[in-house]
Amino acid sequence: MSESESLPIPAGLRVGAVRAGIKPSGGLDLAVFIADRECAAAGTFTTNRVAAAPVQWCRSLLPTDHIRAVVVNAGNANAATGEQGLANARKMAEVVAGKIGCDATQVLVASTGVIGRQLPMDKVEAGIIDAIRQSEPTEAAFHTASQAIMTTDTRPKVVSRTVKLSNGDETSIVGLAKGAAMIGPNMATMLGFLFTDAKIGPGQLHGILTQAVEDSFNCISVEGHMSTNDTVLLLALGNTLATVKGDDLAPFARAVREVCLELSRKIVDDGEGTTHTITIDVEGCTDRAEARKIAEAVAHSPLVKTAISGADPNWGRIVSAAGYAGIPFAEEELSLWVNGFPLYQNGMPLPFEEAVVSAAIRDQRETHFRLLFTRGDASIRFWTTDLTAEYVRLNADYTT
Amino acid sequence: MSESESLPIPAGLRVGAVRAGIKPSGGLDLAVFIADRECAAAGTFTTNRVAAAPVQWCRSLLPTDHIRAVVVNAGNANAATGEQGLANARKMAEVVAGKIGCDATQVLVASTGVIGRQLPMDKVEAGIIDAIRQSEPTEAAFHTASQAIMTTDTRPKVVSRTVKLSNGDETSIVGLAKGAAMIGPNMATMLGFLFTDAKIGPGQLHGILTQAVEDSFNCISVEGHMSTNDTVLLLALGNTLATVKGDDLAPFARAVREVCLELSRKIVDDGEGTTHTITIDVEGCTDRAEARKIAEAVAHSPLVKTAISGADPNWGRIVSAAGYAGIPFAEEELSLWVNGFPLYQNGMPLPFEEAVVSAAIRDQRETHFRLLFTRGDASIRFWTTDLTAEYVRLNADYTT
Repeated sequence: MSESESLPIPAGLRVGAVRAGIKPSGGLDLAVFIADRECAAAGTFTTNRVAAAPVQWCRSLLPTDHIRAVVVNAGNANAATGEQGLANARKMAEVVAGKIGCDATQVLVASTGVIGRQLPMDKVEAGIIDAIRQSEPTEAAFHTASQAIMTTDTRPKVVSRTVKLSNGDETSIVGLAKGAAMIGPNMATMLGFLFTDAKIGPGQLHGILTQAVEDSFNCISVEGHMSTNDTVLLLALGNTLATVKGDDLAPFARAVREVCLELSRKIVDDGEGTTHTITIDVEGCTDRAEARKIAEAVAHSPLVKTAISGADPNWGRIVSAAGYAGIPFAEEELSLWVNGFPLYQNGMPLPFEEAVVSAAIRDQRETHFRLLFTRGDASIRFWTTDLTAEYVRLNADYTT
Repeated sequence: MSESESLPIPAGLRVGAVRAGIKPSGGLDLAVFIADRECAAAGTFTTNRVAAAPVQWCRSLLPTDHIRAVVVNAGNANAATGEQGLANARKMAEVVAGKIGCDATQVLVASTGVIGRQLPMDKVEAGIIDAIRQSEPTEAAFHTASQAIMTTDTRPKVVSRTVKLSNGDETSIVGLAKGAAMIGPNMATMLGFLFTDAKIGPGQLHGILTQAVEDSFNCISVEGHMSTNDTVLLLALGNTLATVKGDDLAPFARAVREVCLELSRKIVDDGEGTTHTITIDVEGCTDRAEARKIAEAVAHSPLVKTAISGADPNWGRIVSAAGYAGIPFAEEELSLWVNGFPLYQNGMPLPFEEAVVSAAIRDQRETHFRLLFTRGDASIRFWTTDLTAEYVRLNADYTT
């Protein structure tokens, strides 16, 4: 969404973002989100065994209905930083808590940036105090915060949805994210923060967020390298009159899912050094886990990704990537379409005009694979990018 | 080994290689290996569900002690070719069998090249007859055959070992392979053929080959894309006086393993468009499967591979790749060395001279990672390459 569109910031949410001096560039690098009351909150996190200190901090607190604030910094991931790192994550929460009048355990923390270095806590603490002082309940502040969480992203990512409830009220969800950009000297951490004015319990919030993330942030892959810091948080401020329950739960969950999906798409689209976004539909599997394994094998194959960057309709690479996903399918169970062209049917290649399919890949940024199996009814939609020489050049630069 | 070194071709083995016209380049593309008697034979094959016709043919025959010949073509993989492909693989065996006087089920078949196209059987049949006619029991013929199985390889790969038996006799193993070269419009099939004059049963041969492949060909990764055609065959001509048994089994197995290891190394070293070979030692794991999962996650990470091509000692990428391998280790259990420099110890980064470590990576083709865990005694050695912009350029070229 552009900044000109109206953003439904939940009543009671104040946002502040500053240049704390953590990023060497001197750019915006610290943001706070402060609720005027205790919020229901849920989170999903990286499953990487090397989990950053702020991830460990948040995991120990969620889900709960006592959260008052979120503090985020970019420029330093506070990962692989040991006891000192955990103390620093807690300190960030304490500084916020001291200023807004709550307990440190009511403040969530997220970090992104270089790993293996301790946070410059003097700058972080001064930045937090400054950000709280400047915080405002405005769209402009929210947009500024969406820039402060960026690392290698080329543009901020903000999405919202409004849901009509059965009693005639409305509730909104607004989200911001920073992405798994492909370039960058360090890992591509994904952070997402969603805020809603809805009144809803933390247990339900957790279920809704988990399912939404499973369908969105967990279905994107740029280079298949999971970060130490991946975090998605959802805070419900509860400033609406009616509680979301009963028949209103499904549309609310759908709206959360849509916000997550659109943020995910923005992350994939922002892969610098890429020339194609690839949507992979795997259908007709026995269950979703099976479809996911096949989609991931295709999405992570450098041979598939380089073929698309070269507009090469090399269906053999796609079919064979599916073949090593660890799913015991028979060749006859698989058919493949690329950008709508049928290339492979029930285990046999189909004749096709190679120049025509190549042009269809070359001439648009969107590429679509459909892998249709005859094994069942389960499916998944997965997104990835192509792999370009520019990506390698950007990632190979000596930067440490 | 260079062509000037003496190659212990087993007595009774005749080798022929010709230009059958399958490769568009007109290069050598068909080879036959003919034994003067029935051989014990074993094989290991791709686990890709999209297995080429010759793989299906060989799988149905091995292990056995009745093999008389192997026929191999390059330029066309006979994969994803359905019933016609299976008929063509059988036809290749039948043509050989007809000429040398045996049953088709005594002839093994392997193919590599483009997938999804039917073999030009007129050229293949004429080539087989020609190759049999030209076949000789010579080193020169063996070296010529090592060129005929190449696709995107830049050089042939031939290795041998000789083992002294306890009765004073000697037995030799000679092997040739073509590799998982990184370039190439199609998948990087790995083919390996080993021949020994040893007298040994097919069951023991199968066990020895399986273990050797597990430690060698299954521990290399160039782009993590498993082919439809991967095949390793081992034929024992049995022309020696003594049977390999008892105390002689272990040194014989070790020699087979060494041949496989050296061929594997040659395949990785031949990754065109690469600037580094990376040896990954994962040690101190609870079992070998665990060590393998971690090694594979590191070896397949594009961020790790691009960092090495840029001489960037970015230990965070290595540690975090280990972190998402699916093994539930704690950070404190992991220490890391790169080219002998300790960078990470028991979950904490160590101070190091970045320029010094970067220079150590930049100035040599060999890069070494050691990931030491404190979880047990199991280890694995894995080999991969870096990822360069040149690789992507070569693989993205529109070639179909």
